[in-house]
Amino acid sequence: MPIRNIAFGRPEEATRPDALKAAFAEFICTLIFVFAGEGSGMAFNKLTDNGSTTPAGLVAASLAHAFALFVAVSVGANISGGHVNPAVTFGAFVGGNITLLRGILYWIAQLLGSTVACLLLKFSTNGMTTSAFSLSSGVTVWNAFVFEIVMTFGLVYTVYATAIDPKKGNLGIIAPIAIGFIVGANILAGGAFDGASMNPAVSFGPALVSWTWTNHWVYWAGPLIGGGLAGLVYEVFFISHTHEQLPSTDY
Amino acid sequence: MPIRNIAFGRPEEATRPDALKAAFAEFICTLIFVFAGEGSGMAFNKLTDNGSTTPAGLVAASLAHAFALFVAVSVGANISGGHVNPAVTFGAFVGGNITLLRGILYWIAQLLGSTVACLLLKFSTNGMTTSAFSLSSGVTVWNAFVFEIVMTFGLVYTVYATAIDPKKGNLGIIAPIAIGFIVGANILAGGAFDGASMNPAVSFGPALVSWTWTNHWVYWAGPLIGGGLAGLVYEVFFISHTHEQLPSTDY
Amino acid sequence: MPIRNIAFGRPEEATRPDALKAAFAEFICTLIFVFAGEGSGMAFNKLTDNGSTTPAGLVAASLAHAFALFVAVSVGANISGGHVNPAVTFGAFVGGNITLLRGILYWIAQLLGSTVACLLLKFSTNGMTTSAFSLSSGVTVWNAFVFEIVMTFGLVYTVYATAIDPKKGNLGIIAPIAIGFIVGANILAGGAFDGASMNPAVSFGPALVSWTWTNHWVYWAGPLIGGGLAGLVYEVFFISHTHEQLPSTDY
Amino acid sequence: MPIRNIAFGRPEEATRPDALKAAFAEFICTLIFVFAGEGSGMAFNKLTDNGSTTPAGLVAASLAHAFALFVAVSVGANISGGHVNPAVTFGAFVGGNITLLRGILYWIAQLLGSTVACLLLKFSTNGMTTSAFSLSSGVTVWNAFVFEIVMTFGLVYTVYATAIDPKKGNLGIIAPIAIGFIVGANILAGGAFDGASMNPAVSFGPALVSWTWTNHWVYWAGPLIGGGLAGLVYEVFFISHTHEQLPSTDY
Repeated sequence: MPIRNIAFGRPEEATRPDALKAAFAEFICTLIFVFAGEGSGMAFNKLTDNGSTTPAGLVAASLAHAFALFVAVSVGANISGGHVNPAVTFGAFVGGNITLLRGILYWIAQLLGSTVACLLLKFSTNGMTTSAFSLSSGVTVWNAFVFEIVMTFGLVYTVYATAIDPKKGNLGIIAPIAIGFIVGANILAGGAFDGASMNPAVSFGPALVSWTWTNHWVYWAGPLIGGGLAGLVYEVFFISHTHEQLPSTDY
Repeated sequence: MPIRNIAFGRPEEATRPDALKAAFAEFICTLIFVFAGEGSGMAFNKLTDNGSTTPAGLVAASLAHAFALFVAVSVGANISGGHVNPAVTFGAFVGGNITLLRGILYWIAQLLGSTVACLLLKFSTNGMTTSAFSLSSGVTVWNAFVFEIVMTFGLVYTVYATAIDPKKGNLGIIAPIAIGFIVGANILAGGAFDGASMNPAVSFGPALVSWTWTNHWVYWAGPLIGGGLAGLVYEVFFISHTHEQLPSTDY
Repeated sequence: MPIRNIAFGRPEEATRPDALKAAFAEFICTLIFVFAGEGSGMAFNKLTDNGSTTPAGLVAASLAHAFALFVAVSVGANISGGHVNPAVTFGAFVGGNITLLRGILYWIAQLLGSTVACLLLKFSTNGMTTSAFSLSSGVTVWNAFVFEIVMTFGLVYTVYATAIDPKKGNLGIIAPIAIGFIVGANILAGGAFDGASMNPAVSFGPALVSWTWTNHWVYWAGPLIGGGLAGLVYEVFFISHTHEQLPSTDY
Repeated sequence: MPIRNIAFGRPEEATRPDALKAAFAEFICTLIFVFAGEGSGMAFNKLTDNGSTTPAGLVAASLAHAFALFVAVSVGANISGGHVNPAVTFGAFVGGNITLLRGILYWIAQLLGSTVACLLLKFSTNGMTTSAFSLSSGVTVWNAFVFEIVMTFGLVYTVYATAIDPKKGNLGIIAPIAIGFIVGANILAGGAFDGASMNPAVSFGPALVSWTWTNHWVYWAGPLIGGGLAGLVYEVFFISHTHEQLPSTDY
């Protein structure tokens, strides 16, 4: 399958310096997103002395991630496509909307952005733990696996329908809001069970900085499977059959 | 009355394979919506050990439904019109904006999407109950009946004014947000009394999977009457008299 | 000063049947808005047995009003301009953007819509009180007076800058969201002191149905002064000097 | 570096009377923003008898600032560019997007708007304290310094990517929402530690009216460094290399 557009949104930018610039933008987007998202969890821990999550705490986590992801996608949209998430990049790759090489650059930038955000949080909170994602009591790793698959499917399906689909039309205007808010909605469901990551970079930074790797694989496997599945389903059912293949440049 | 546009938004797609594709899109939209919405209720039950609803819990339910419905409508908009709700489909039918056959396909897809979402939730929460909608203490079935009628009237009226009305103009850009947020607002009012469904598919999935049918009819009758009424009122007062009837294709 | 545009948004609709249709639209918008807004207050009273307001309760009230007003303005925008508020109508009148006669029709429709919403709430909540706006303990009527003036100034200034100003450009697309959200923001400030009405119709319905008129005048005087002031300031400083007076039709 | 556009958004308005009008608009925007934002903090103090912050209180503060800033940016956008924040003005100056003289006028207007908002709040709350920003227990001034730098970097980077960047395209439509919501997200993280100001005007008004200057410098130094850095980074990496320098008028 030919690569239709590189880093959805600005296909014409597919030159090498632009790929580096785009990766730099991904680094900044992810830093901004993780600083607010992970920071909101640490704020909850400070305010409640590491008490167990409450409905108000879940609302705070949901809004912090919804608002910050919406913004992170917005500020990256015109430069890198605003992935901010290895699962989104993988979903875009599966549907043929980003090259392997550029995808790898994005992954590195996203993981780095998350890690730097956590280091900054560790410093500015005077050494608080950057809590890694973990399973709530009574939740098995297979429960979390399904949670992450279904929730990330919803997220990447939203990216496809509102930002990648060439028929998106005016939906593109509110795409960053939709992408942020599906994460906010899913956190209100899955957050009480497995933290609701939907994003390996979001899980990686806190895990690295706090050196906590218990069940870490599920926060990679779930999102990548869910995101890949969404890319495949949307591409096959809603894009491939309805538009002609245009000649396109390769990376 | 001739059918003006099939599945508002993309009248040109009214061929048979497109109807199936649209139904498939409705299935996915509804699954995404119900997974977050019903999931947020189960999260509240987990966090509070099935405690009675609190203002913070109501806010969580409101945001989960507002955000997820906004996204579900967005991701379906260009393919199926993003109904995500048998009452919306019925309201569109009453106003002559969808054919009977396509409407039936949508209903099946919506009910199936909600059921699959509940099954996935049951698995990933390790067997928690998918709580069905029910009346709070002191609330009669006729109270709930009026609540559902008025709230669904508001919802379907919003769908008409922002998404179906040919004069909608730029309102169409923010239509999915408005449609999601009127549900979020109404949950903050009606949620404490009858759960504030406004959507038979949202009520059906949890009821089927938990096999709880007490007063289930009110969650069909209320939304269908309210939605039908809204379609009728908007069509008669604000559409029919102001635009000329264009020739249109029939399903 | 000539009437520039009647019911901002659709100047061409200034015929008599359209004025009635617009008033009918105002009736429905206000009903939808007040049902969710006042209903959320009654839900709080039900959930907490008329407990005193908490931060979570204030958030619920803020979101219910922000979301519902955004939707109410949206669904009315193309038909009546989506005022939903006698203070907005008055502010529009002061700036010369609506005729006296049409303004009076709007007022009647808005007050009627609020009253019907409260009657529906009274029935569907099995006779609960539709709590009228009142001053919190330690708050004087002059405190509330200033609160209502400043907050309604912000609201009507927002209506002018995003919806009435002929130079608004793309801001018009998000105008209904801005108009809803300034009310949501102000409720988080003023709600704990005087209920934060900013809208005589919102205060009138609950007062009439519960027959509670204590300090009711302040919920008229404050919003009308604040709204009128905003109309005057915006019109004089930011509209009148920057565009040429076009010939316009009179009502 | 030549001044590219004065008060991003409306370069053609760079005459002297327009600069004064723009400053007046900044005064009103900031007043509206601070009244709701600072007012929500005072409402929390009233509802909880100056209790320590809770997750629900943090959500209230986040929403009040997110909603009110979104609106303040919207209502100023077409007249002054909607800075509402000396750090945004400074970031725009660093990137060459506003002249020094106009920037100074904006600063004066912003500080004045915040002060008048606090005086109005003091009167309408019957003399409650306009709480100044302060460090939570266990937070050092250098922690707060880094918090303010990182958070304001995110804010001003958002202003550049969605409102100043000439390639912003449709992102400009949702720019005010993004600008408001990144502040809302950051408050959910930093609010529990140092109040999360990101805006010297927001800190100055309450400090002046309550005459509390402890650590006040950090709420100037942090935002100005973070905002300046964002302006520099965005201008150098994402604007300067990608578009040709057009001749531009100087103030």
